[in-house]
Amino acid sequence: VSPALPLRIAVDAMGSDHGPSPLVLGALQALAELGPDLRLSLVGREDEIRAAMPGGRGSEQVEVVAASEVVSTEEAPTVALRRKKDSSIRRAAEMVAQGEADGVVSAGPTGAVTATMQVVLRPLSGVLRPSIAAVLPSPKGPTLLLDCGANVDCRPEWLLQFAVMGQVYGEVVMGKRSPRVALLSIGEEAGKGNELTRAVHALLQRADLTFIGNIDGRDVLAGRADVVVCDGFTGNAVLKLGESVPPLILDVLRSELEARPLSRLGLWLLRPALRRAFERLDWESYGGAPLLGVDGACIICHGRSGPKAIRNAIRVARDFVRGGVRERIAERLKGVA
Amino acid sequence: VSPALPLRIAVDAMGSDHGPSPLVLGALQALAELGPDLRLSLVGREDEIRAAMPGGRGSEQVEVVAASEVVSTEEAPTVALRRKKDSSIRRAAEMVAQGEADGVVSAGPTGAVTATMQVVLRPLSGVLRPSIAAVLPSPKGPTLLLDCGANVDCRPEWLLQFAVMGQVYGEVVMGKRSPRVALLSIGEEAGKGNELTRAVHALLQRADLTFIGNIDGRDVLAGRADVVVCDGFTGNAVLKLGESVPPLILDVLRSELEARPLSRLGLWLLRPALRRAFERLDWESYGGAPLLGVDGACIICHGRSGPKAIRNAIRVARDFVRGGVRERIAERLKGVA
Repeated sequence: VSPALPLRIAVDAMGSDHGPSPLVLGALQALAELGPDLRLSLVGREDEIRAAMPGGRGSEQVEVVAASEVVSTEEAPTVALRRKKDSSIRRAAEMVAQGEADGVVSAGPTGAVTATMQVVLRPLSGVLRPSIAAVLPSPKGPTLLLDCGANVDCRPEWLLQFAVMGQVYGEVVMGKRSPRVALLSIGEEAGKGNELTRAVHALLQRADLTFIGNIDGRDVLAGRADVVVCDGFTGNAVLKLGESVPPLILDVLRSELEARPLSRLGLWLLRPALRRAFERLDWESYGGAPLLGVDGACIICHGRSGPKAIRNAIRVARDFVRGGVRERIAERLKGVA
Repeated sequence: VSPALPLRIAVDAMGSDHGPSPLVLGALQALAELGPDLRLSLVGREDEIRAAMPGGRGSEQVEVVAASEVVSTEEAPTVALRRKKDSSIRRAAEMVAQGEADGVVSAGPTGAVTATMQVVLRPLSGVLRPSIAAVLPSPKGPTLLLDCGANVDCRPEWLLQFAVMGQVYGEVVMGKRSPRVALLSIGEEAGKGNELTRAVHALLQRADLTFIGNIDGRDVLAGRADVVVCDGFTGNAVLKLGESVPPLILDVLRSELEARPLSRLGLWLLRPALRRAFERLDWESYGGAPLLGVDGACIICHGRSGPKAIRNAIRVARDFVRGGVRERIAERLKGVA
């Protein structure tokens, strides 16, 4: 993609838990933020998408692309893929496959999005298994964790490729000069871990990476590494548990604070500091999970994403395309395989 | 153990990161709380233990048992076990094995404590693999997670036994009438997960347990299950990540609050509510991780435990012995194997 041409992102407008509204609003925010070189295609049911536009009007930079079906979280991804040939996810993926868009953003069910991209976009040449990576907040900046669920039973070579793909993403999108790569295990020594991690440790030590060794669960969010690799079962468990903790803490705090009148005054005084703290810890601000290793740019958002998360995901998709993540992964893997 | 006889707990006084002091103080607090039917043996270097006693004096209910060596977190557990025959961990375990104590509490390195108990106490008859269980706080009460690192590459039958052992612990120590047992996976459907969890799911469905099915990482701390089983690699990663989140949130909050003078007043007004909220979420208050499936009661505490955590662990060890967890596990597993 030449920087001179407008960049085209297909946005699956139907996937979110809250209907097209967060997608449509996020898309309009992205246009306002990212300037005139962006073109967005909102894919889905035209009437619902138009109804979600403020004043019913879009912008010259937005088109609506019709797709009649919606994939829900209740459906098995492979069944949805086979039966719903006109789903918004599939139509958005086809736009990329047919050269009508440069990348895709979806807040649809992760399994369905991943399966659709693997079938419609296909894995990049040389990629053994595409991988879902999550960008985790930490006080010292974002950390990329992969795989987060696309591959549950893994071979060591797959994790080596996850590390290489994560390295490229860390360089291009996260702006790290030489991203520190770590292996998630249960202790720092090379011999600590399970059969898989011991084999992967040996591969990573020989690879052309800034490999800092094993880290354990305690260090994932502490900012010790820029890229953390693990199998998708562990990654999924760790990611979901981590996401669950801040709301639990908030719930307990809220119930205690509401029981005491003076606490309300105190809370009011703390508001600016609290707002800033939660911005720093906000999982939404990092803008979605990149699917690495397919032949196209794909960013997957939470089903519950608000406009801000969608806007950020569109920005990330742009950086992904402009920075040539796909091409660099293919290039880098030639040296590994 | 007859309830009429005093209950004897051997406390490894040397294992903590902060020397014998938290162990000794916690032991004295436990005596004050738990009454006259308790006898404690503080195992380790006699001079250091005596120096940690307030006024240099103990109580009639406390004896000091000499052990000259200390196992550190830097040592490989198996090496420490082989070389340090007079370590405080080993001496405490031997007291149980030889009938001089009913249970043991240690804040030593988890790997070394586990290895020592497996060798000195031996697994219970019928137990395939002893397991470390962690008691996690949740807004709805504690949840037991096992295995947390004693067994990284697991067979399905081991996880079935973890579930049965967790069930017994849930009944006896956590006071649940029929503990809800869940399998940690990456989705609720039986088919979701990796090879291991799919096989375990089938075993758990046929077992005599209140099996509520798969849960994912999001649900572990939400109180949906009383007992959550998983392999020790996943459990360790999830446990350590979960423990790391509250301090990270506090760090970020603190740095933002200190930057603003009015925040200090606000914080002062919030103090009672915050204190109560953190008590509810405090990982220390649940008192250590039981090692289930060895022929004795063993509670493992964090190396950084304070007196309160030690006191709670001694209480848990007492409940473990008085409630006959060991005997019930042996009995229950006869019906499973």
